[in-house]
Amino acid sequence: MIIQFTDNATIKEKEEVKSVLASYSFRTRGVITGGASYLVTVGSEELDIRKIGNMKGVSDVHRVEDDQKLVSRKWKVDPTIVNINGTAIGGEEITIIAGPCSIENSEQVATVASFLKQNGINIMRGGVFKPRSSPYSFRGVGLEGLRSFHEICSSMGIKVITEVMDNEQIDDMYDYVDIFQVGARNSQNFTLLDAMGRLDKPVLLKRGLSGTIDELLYSAEYIFSGGNERIILCERGIRTFEKSYRNTFDINAVPVLKRKSHLPVIVDPSHGTGIRSIVREIALAGIIAGADGIMVEIHETPAKAVSDAAQTLDFVEAERLFYNARATWKFREQLSLPV
Amino acid sequence: MIIQFTDNATIKEKEEVKSVLASYSFRTRGVITGGASYLVTVGSEELDIRKIGNMKGVSDVHRVEDDQKLVSRKWKVDPTIVNINGTAIGGEEITIIAGPCSIENSEQVATVASFLKQNGINIMRGGVFKPRSSPYSFRGVGLEGLRSFHEICSSMGIKVITEVMDNEQIDDMYDYVDIFQVGARNSQNFTLLDAMGRLDKPVLLKRGLSGTIDELLYSAEYIFSGGNERIILCERGIRTFEKSYRNTFDINAVPVLKRKSHLPVIVDPSHGTGIRSIVREIALAGIIAGADGIMVEIHETPAKAVSDAAQTLDFVEAERLFYNARATWKFREQLSLPV
Amino acid sequence: MIIQFTDNATIKEKEEVKSVLASYSFRTRGVITGGASYLVTVGSEELDIRKIGNMKGVSDVHRVEDDQKLVSRKWKVDPTIVNINGTAIGGEEITIIAGPCSIENSEQVATVASFLKQNGINIMRGGVFKPRSSPYSFRGVGLEGLRSFHEICSSMGIKVITEVMDNEQIDDMYDYVDIFQVGARNSQNFTLLDAMGRLDKPVLLKRGLSGTIDELLYSAEYIFSGGNERIILCERGIRTFEKSYRNTFDINAVPVLKRKSHLPVIVDPSHGTGIRSIVREIALAGIIAGADGIMVEIHETPAKAVSDAAQTLDFVEAERLFYNARATWKFREQLSLPV
Amino acid sequence: MIIQFTDNATIKEKEEVKSVLASYSFRTRGVITGGASYLVTVGSEELDIRKIGNMKGVSDVHRVEDDQKLVSRKWKVDPTIVNINGTAIGGEEITIIAGPCSIENSEQVATVASFLKQNGINIMRGGVFKPRSSPYSFRGVGLEGLRSFHEICSSMGIKVITEVMDNEQIDDMYDYVDIFQVGARNSQNFTLLDAMGRLDKPVLLKRGLSGTIDELLYSAEYIFSGGNERIILCERGIRTFEKSYRNTFDINAVPVLKRKSHLPVIVDPSHGTGIRSIVREIALAGIIAGADGIMVEIHETPAKAVSDAAQTLDFVEAERLFYNARATWKFREQLSLPV
Repeated sequence: MIIQFTDNATIKEKEEVKSVLASYSFRTRGVITGGASYLVTVGSEELDIRKIGNMKGVSDVHRVEDDQKLVSRKWKVDPTIVNINGTAIGGEEITIIAGPCSIENSEQVATVASFLKQNGINIMRGGVFKPRSSPYSFRGVGLEGLRSFHEICSSMGIKVITEVMDNEQIDDMYDYVDIFQVGARNSQNFTLLDAMGRLDKPVLLKRGLSGTIDELLYSAEYIFSGGNERIILCERGIRTFEKSYRNTFDINAVPVLKRKSHLPVIVDPSHGTGIRSIVREIALAGIIAGADGIMVEIHETPAKAVSDAAQTLDFVEAERLFYNARATWKFREQLSLPV
Repeated sequence: MIIQFTDNATIKEKEEVKSVLASYSFRTRGVITGGASYLVTVGSEELDIRKIGNMKGVSDVHRVEDDQKLVSRKWKVDPTIVNINGTAIGGEEITIIAGPCSIENSEQVATVASFLKQNGINIMRGGVFKPRSSPYSFRGVGLEGLRSFHEICSSMGIKVITEVMDNEQIDDMYDYVDIFQVGARNSQNFTLLDAMGRLDKPVLLKRGLSGTIDELLYSAEYIFSGGNERIILCERGIRTFEKSYRNTFDINAVPVLKRKSHLPVIVDPSHGTGIRSIVREIALAGIIAGADGIMVEIHETPAKAVSDAAQTLDFVEAERLFYNARATWKFREQLSLPV
Repeated sequence: MIIQFTDNATIKEKEEVKSVLASYSFRTRGVITGGASYLVTVGSEELDIRKIGNMKGVSDVHRVEDDQKLVSRKWKVDPTIVNINGTAIGGEEITIIAGPCSIENSEQVATVASFLKQNGINIMRGGVFKPRSSPYSFRGVGLEGLRSFHEICSSMGIKVITEVMDNEQIDDMYDYVDIFQVGARNSQNFTLLDAMGRLDKPVLLKRGLSGTIDELLYSAEYIFSGGNERIILCERGIRTFEKSYRNTFDINAVPVLKRKSHLPVIVDPSHGTGIRSIVREIALAGIIAGADGIMVEIHETPAKAVSDAAQTLDFVEAERLFYNARATWKFREQLSLPV
Repeated sequence: MIIQFTDNATIKEKEEVKSVLASYSFRTRGVITGGASYLVTVGSEELDIRKIGNMKGVSDVHRVEDDQKLVSRKWKVDPTIVNINGTAIGGEEITIIAGPCSIENSEQVATVASFLKQNGINIMRGGVFKPRSSPYSFRGVGLEGLRSFHEICSSMGIKVITEVMDNEQIDDMYDYVDIFQVGARNSQNFTLLDAMGRLDKPVLLKRGLSGTIDELLYSAEYIFSGGNERIILCERGIRTFEKSYRNTFDINAVPVLKRKSHLPVIVDPSHGTGIRSIVREIALAGIIAGADGIMVEIHETPAKAVSDAAQTLDFVEAERLFYNARATWKFREQLSLPV
């Protein structure tokens, strides 16, 4: 059950509701997000919900069968639009996020940011703390690089998305990040998810390497129930037996996530394939299947990129993709496809 | 190496070429298809190919690094168009194949065939020998049903595609089948593939449940090297850890197969998802990613279908899909997408 | 439900039972094996089974919840012992099957057979029809080789197990084979399974590359319900994301299969690993986990083997394995481990 | 390359070595563990290593081809024995770790600890911070529970192993933990691995849900190269298509890890199966395949356990397992099995 309180519900009214629920052996969890105040109940739920709905301070009650309640579309039918200072994800415009795998230096940031600006794109990705399988690989330019990344971008009106790997990094990163990314390897790092729930900035949550749809939604529920409802889901390919590509992009996940959850869904065809020459096809496939946008790796000279060179588009390829992606988005509207 | 002989090459000339190749320790395999006569060589290949190219009776020589040589695009750059009595797969028109999972009776065939006819579709699918995990499940109407299936369809100008499970069935089926389908569970049934190679009818080859891209192309190579070059590849979802869907549709396979092979590629979003409500999105994703067509399960009343009800479209859903699929095909042409 | 008839039940009595069952909307399947005559029913099963148990000609009735009824341990509690002319699989002695991946020539057969004889092993494996991913790979010595393989072995009292790939091969192979092997790629070749059900020789059924426990038991049910109860299950590794080994040997399958089914279970650590140096450890692990025996690839000079060289043991390694395997079997008896 | 310095090497001597290596374009990483001081080099490595070996302050130089250098057996041939205040893991005695999935209360700890003591077991497992898919599940008794867990155990001479989920927890946990466990979901949490490298307590590192052998060894390399060489690897089952068990225990990993690395390997048959009735078989299989020990979940009344009830042994089952495990260990010594 999800109980939404009225804006002016008093503490006493809320406690009253909790107490009634407790008398029916429900466990409850209070959730206060930027937008509203809720109680989520877990329990056997054999109770006439009108009993709660009629209580003072209660604006709405929903019975939600899904285990992931707050992120479920069974509770919230309308899609969530995540706003980042005027930029919307999940709304009527396609979201395009692009940038290098790793931030390398200011020149690179400036070059890519200008390129994005010219192409009307206002969210730039770039890793500064890099999760790498080997301890001897390049592990990112760190905080210093992030500051310069953010400075250049913000001066051009471009938002910054970058990966956070650990709770200890959050405070230092906070001022220089517009969207926090939780990476595939941290998709079930629950203390990090808890911390993301306490943030007042949006979070892009990647699906784990072998994460199920249910687990991804549970991880999103961690963030939402922690108090942050500005969550973006990201399908980025899963690990299978097939070794012709780095990962197997799971296109089924796109319409399934859109149906199960009200949260926006972004696709990452760069990691989803690991193969530059098919990134465009998979990006467009993701869009036509219902995604709210794409996130792709680009670099002025992919061959010189310090990481992920094989899946990174050059600027010519990127422009073609942006053009095609927007055309596909428009085309999809005519089909009135998803959900 | 692939050596193509001229149309009027004599047996003696061919033997001469083989003998030179043998002197360089190459193993050779002679391949005669409806279209041409080839020698495929397997070996260390350190030989100036001009030496062979200049011999009498030789029209062309190619060094092909891929292990799957005859189906490789490195050998044959232009896409293969498979002709079935005037219907082309792999050409400028989208291919749409539709029909029930299982053929049930003549009324059902007539109803579906009429529906397809009205929608301008001229290939109908329908299983008469059904591969079923359990021996106690319905295993198809068999040969008698196939005859009636074919009779009704051919009277309406509709081609029949159905699955062959065993070499012993081929002769009996031959007159009533326009395209033989090799199912996912038989994707590495090599004696069946050998037999398909000896056929003069087209073969639609499904990828195995856990078949790799390489294995699918090897299986196609079996058929081609056996003498039949009219092969259609079919991506139908793979088996992964994810249990929210029956199979995980591998969208990456579409552009990868199109790049590696000259053979047409069809997608099967019905088996690729197992979920009726997302069949359309995945079908369109497959098309935009470069597929030459789609194969979908439809039924007048899916709830009454004897098999695969959960993934079968009703006629309203099917019409919407056909309409969208054709629009997406046209849209893709403007993007000039694949390869 | 499984209804076992008395040995002298008349046709009329059997028809009477069927007719009663039909009146309760049960579908039935008659099964006659070498050992007994049964009716298997499929249906909603709300019937007092005593009603059937009291009918003439009925010796026993069991309600079996498992979908795979005849191979279920819920029906037949005692383990099945498969007898092959005096050699028992599934009984009190460990079964050891060994031999080359592919039969190469008579000398090789004689060498291996003598080695086995010296080591008290009386079942020899060896492929003569080889399922190979590539059509250009060595595909076996064929029927001629099988004859000589069988002749040498039978003269030494050694039984022959070899893979059958197709129904068309069965008749020709019949006289020269003591145990028919159904390979992993044919694990769901249902027409082949049907044919195995009509045979009066034992069948070793390998699990498919991505075959589930349930599918393996269903495939066994095909054979049993076809009339052949002499079935041996074989775990040989499954396909996963891990590429450090050819396959991932699924040790869990051993105790799970032993608990679910009364059929004997053999492990194949050669294919289960693809790595010669760990074959022994995995073989012993399989035994201690409850397997009834092992099947391993051996060759006098593995480096010269025409196939599977990397996973084939030489004679020294093989002897060490045989010695260890028997010791582990004895040790397990003291622990009184499985089931 | 791994360069080990002599105990009394001066800073100047070390800098001299680094400088020579830098002149050959090697990147180097200094590693100081409790036991010794090393330089690990990453680079193209075309250098006569005697040149380095003859320098002052250098005790030993090894060329190591493996990417995971410090944990590789190619560098350190002898197995590592991890000592925890007198208790050794990886030595001549089998290691048995047991305890509940979750610590519940003092009575439970006392009951289990006494049971372990009676059975001669001196490492107890028990989660106090629980990684749970759902935010609404029980997430552990936390630090307070850990203190009491440790107090009871230490008074009985039993060591405590528990999972750490986050860098922020380390300081608070430090005094109450004898072995830090990094869980499967944190197997590639690189900042946590870095922190583990700075610890002077042993770390048990679990393989990820879909972690490869290489990734597990890389994660161990993080810890070792961070300065902590007291690492224990743990195989706990991987995620595959098979749904008859919670995870698929990867028995191949045991001998492969033992061959590739000098670190001790523990198996966790509880998570590796998720099925109480086969835990014992899989534990014994792990031992015979070369594991240095086992970690199992036990509870006085499994049905009442707050988590993982289905895979938890009761005390009778546990005693039988301990007895069998020790017998199998002794039996393995006679076979002189691994490596």
